[in-house]
Amino acid sequence: MVKPYVIGIDIGGQSTKLGVVDARGNIIIQDTFDTRDITTLKDYMDELEKSLTRMIAAPEIGGKEKIKGIGIGAPNGNYYKGTIEAAPNLKWAKDKQGNPKVVHLKKNVEEAMGISAVVTNDANAAAQGEMIYGAAKGMKNFIEITLGTGVGSGIVIDGKVVYGHDGFAGELGHTTSIRRTGRMCNCGKIGCLESYASAIGVARTARELLEMDPKRPSTLRNMPADDITSRDVAEAAAKGDALSIEVFNYTGRILGEAFADFVAFSAPEAIVLFGGLAQAGDLIFKPTIDAMEDNLLSIWKGKVKVIPSQLPGSEAAILGSAALAWEL
Amino acid sequence: MVKPYVIGIDIGGQSTKLGVVDARGNIIIQDTFDTRDITTLKDYMDELEKSLTRMIAAPEIGGKEKIKGIGIGAPNGNYYKGTIEAAPNLKWAKDKQGNPKVVHLKKNVEEAMGISAVVTNDANAAAQGEMIYGAAKGMKNFIEITLGTGVGSGIVIDGKVVYGHDGFAGELGHTTSIRRTGRMCNCGKIGCLESYASAIGVARTARELLEMDPKRPSTLRNMPADDITSRDVAEAAAKGDALSIEVFNYTGRILGEAFADFVAFSAPEAIVLFGGLAQAGDLIFKPTIDAMEDNLLSIWKGKVKVIPSQLPGSEAAILGSAALAWEL
Repeated sequence: MVKPYVIGIDIGGQSTKLGVVDARGNIIIQDTFDTRDITTLKDYMDELEKSLTRMIAAPEIGGKEKIKGIGIGAPNGNYYKGTIEAAPNLKWAKDKQGNPKVVHLKKNVEEAMGISAVVTNDANAAAQGEMIYGAAKGMKNFIEITLGTGVGSGIVIDGKVVYGHDGFAGELGHTTSIRRTGRMCNCGKIGCLESYASAIGVARTARELLEMDPKRPSTLRNMPADDITSRDVAEAAAKGDALSIEVFNYTGRILGEAFADFVAFSAPEAIVLFGGLAQAGDLIFKPTIDAMEDNLLSIWKGKVKVIPSQLPGSEAAILGSAALAWEL
Repeated sequence: MVKPYVIGIDIGGQSTKLGVVDARGNIIIQDTFDTRDITTLKDYMDELEKSLTRMIAAPEIGGKEKIKGIGIGAPNGNYYKGTIEAAPNLKWAKDKQGNPKVVHLKKNVEEAMGISAVVTNDANAAAQGEMIYGAAKGMKNFIEITLGTGVGSGIVIDGKVVYGHDGFAGELGHTTSIRRTGRMCNCGKIGCLESYASAIGVARTARELLEMDPKRPSTLRNMPADDITSRDVAEAAAKGDALSIEVFNYTGRILGEAFADFVAFSAPEAIVLFGGLAQAGDLIFKPTIDAMEDNLLSIWKGKVKVIPSQLPGSEAAILGSAALAWEL
């Protein structure tokens, strides 16, 4: 029997979004529930099961025989083990002492629903979604870079997301862009790409530039420095604020230097930028591409595309997770 | 009919080595010819064909029906196109103006011999050899790093060498280890891993340390600074020369920092070190592993092996190229 639909579940710190998706990337039906007050795995699974059951039973879907599988994107999701491991932002994934615990999500969902499931992290899900529904349609070799609160990545080689020996491959946000003198990253390392190219990194660069020369004019001075977000910097830059433009040039340069190293690794056809920062257009793309080109080996100069994601922002996470399930 | 043998051809700047190899990695018969005086592709192909024909006809082989395929490792070898491109050290691969030209090696060999052939670069061949005959037997995910005159790499993911979109993936010697203030690499970039961790890089580090403090004692001062090779440094270090030991500590630190980034990319089970420098044992392994561990994300600490190649030095290049041919 033909199974025309898959389900995508995107697990975030605040809420869980899920939807039933067809082969062309149309979300037929979707749901979301708030998870901030859920403190146990049992309560979380009850809520998830309720939502899934309701969607699957909807007349436009027609029951679980129509569902090929369930794809789940979650922080620290492990593809091989089907687990979430040590995810600090999920209250319901902690033990009684408040420490993150290993959650066997794949097993729990399969037992509750009687449908095959697959788990991965959000960046790998985005890469899979990009390949099936987005800007990387038809590509066999590309790298998806997610520029959000952090910097994530999903690497596709020969048409497959790379999981590596242990299921955790593709942590390019924690490659070292600035050695020795770099910023301390949340992960404890010095100079990670994430500490510069994330939304938090961009805001920090802006604050540093404002402090460095207190007399330099900038529209960012109209707000308290601690309140500045990457969005504020993008808006100011778009209106021509020179300091804010410099923030993007600096960020793009670090990003492009890192991209040149990624190209030397897997020789991708394209690098796809996903997430808030990627929406800044030329402001971020131009300095990034210039810096990448400056640092590429000659065999790759002018040959590797850097392009924006074509996954629709609000639905991207569901589509990415859903795309995983077609491989089940 | 069973084809029990493959042929491996290793093309170097000075000579070409070739051999007939069985499934267990025994080299049944081998040959080598000097290529320094060969200046045209036709002359090269004549010589190669003569050597291949002689080996294949030998009684212990028994004719070309016994040969499954021919694997060729060559500088700048391209797996997809079956070519050598822009290889500056091969006199017979240049046009009349002395510029490197594209040589359709796969096509030429197949037409001459009537046996399927495959071409790749030497580091990818080493990785394939390591997986089939060496230290990575049974591994699906590892990275081979060749430490020679330059620094090369072959990346294996899910049991396959990564070639990328264009066939040139795995140039990890040209990822940037020291930004901005680093050494100028032969490739024109600043701060490439190769400019530190190659044999030439090690000798250069020794000269820099000798110059930095002219009063510091070292047995390396017994020879002209320009004559110092990485082997001299290794021998002096093995005998306890403090400056030479510092050279290895410095080299290992840069190598290990780079390895931490490689792990974040493909999460390998192991990194295998091949080539002259890798024979320095603990002198290079200890600082490399320490620096890698210092820079790994916590999920990988203590989990990624760094081990020496188990391909026999003198025959490694033939075995590596031969290993490619089993996939034909």
